[in-house]
Amino acid sequence: MARQLYELCGTDPARVFSPFCWRSRFALAHKGLDFESIPWRFTETERLAFAKHDKVPVLVDGARVVPDSFAIARYLDEAYPERPSLMHGRAHAYRFIQSWTGTVFHAALIRLIVSDVPPLLDEKARSYFIESRQQRFGMKLAEVTRDREARLPEFRAMLSPLRDAVLAQPFLGGDAPDYADHVVMGAFMWARGTSPLRLLAEDDPVWSWRERLLDAYGGIARATPRAEA
Amino acid sequence: MARQLYELCGTDPARVFSPFCWRSRFALAHKGLDFESIPWRFTETERLAFAKHDKVPVLVDGARVVPDSFAIARYLDEAYPERPSLMHGRAHAYRFIQSWTGTVFHAALIRLIVSDVPPLLDEKARSYFIESRQQRFGMKLAEVTRDREARLPEFRAMLSPLRDAVLAQPFLGGDAPDYADHVVMGAFMWARGTSPLRLLAEDDPVWSWRERLLDAYGGIARATPRAEA
Repeated sequence: MARQLYELCGTDPARVFSPFCWRSRFALAHKGLDFESIPWRFTETERLAFAKHDKVPVLVDGARVVPDSFAIARYLDEAYPERPSLMHGRAHAYRFIQSWTGTVFHAALIRLIVSDVPPLLDEKARSYFIESRQQRFGMKLAEVTRDREARLPEFRAMLSPLRDAVLAQPFLGGDAPDYADHVVMGAFMWARGTSPLRLLAEDDPVWSWRERLLDAYGGIARATPRAEA
Repeated sequence: MARQLYELCGTDPARVFSPFCWRSRFALAHKGLDFESIPWRFTETERLAFAKHDKVPVLVDGARVVPDSFAIARYLDEAYPERPSLMHGRAHAYRFIQSWTGTVFHAALIRLIVSDVPPLLDEKARSYFIESRQQRFGMKLAEVTRDREARLPEFRAMLSPLRDAVLAQPFLGGDAPDYADHVVMGAFMWARGTSPLRLLAEDDPVWSWRERLLDAYGGIARATPRAEA
């Protein structure tokens, strides 16, 4: 049975932009495991019923069905211990970076890019996305991102813990990337796939770290469709 | 030769309140290693000349002199591999939590407690502290903390990555504390030793995590002098 990863995508199935799906994409690449990408779009919950879950990513590996990006990373380390480790037997040590990424980084990022997403979606997904996000923010998406250029300095300051860490070492994982890098880079891939906004300055150590991850694993991240300016 | 830890303290040598010294204190306790605390006070740089360093903590372990809390943690894991591990052979994986603690947590915390520190210091240290911190903030220390009660909600929101992580597991290190917990708890010990300000609400998962660390290692943290309300 083939290995499959259900991933969120836009109208173009190559436009994979979910930060959580990117964690699994990087994790599979890190493990050197091939997979077939199964395009999934917002509202297609019934297509995930087999996984008893309503969100992507979902990994199908032979007879195993694994939903949730963190569970997928743990599964991959358990099932393929002979391949390069994602979390080095210390999965709980990767909790904080996920919490920071989810509560701080994603929260700031979505306010910069959310209005760029709808044009990339097909009609049904677009309606769902606009309605659910407008409800969350209590305003039109264009209003959420209207002053985004002015908020870039604050956004870049928010990245200070990441900046400090990647000044001291090439990757969060040390000399080579590991699952901590996948988690944070997933957020940058979300932005890269959806928004032309220039998040980082070229002289930012975070820029250089991001470049290293765009090149990692044979350049899989750099090769995916990018939002045009 | 005895093991000694040079630690920042107030007029009372038992009042150890440096967040960085607390990292080393917890690390030594985690390793089960006894040490003699050598009181050190602001401006006593000449007393650290033997370590070619001007800040505490400095660990003296027999013939070895190790300045800097992170270097001390790495040294302890290397020198005592048979004792409980602090960083599990993955020191660089602890960079991000140190960066977050240093750039986000400490920066927010000092603005809440800095005016409580001077009364705990002897005259020379007090003059140095007030002058250097007033210069850093560009205002009197009482002005820095004046509206601190009003800033508590923002401070507590800043802790969201920690809160999320310790909702999912007892310690950042998993079922038992490790160096990640020591780093973050060091900041809370700084506050506990110097300020009567009530940083957390009792129903906050961070409160419960802090309680677990106050009790850890035979309760060494709970036993040190606390600022009175």
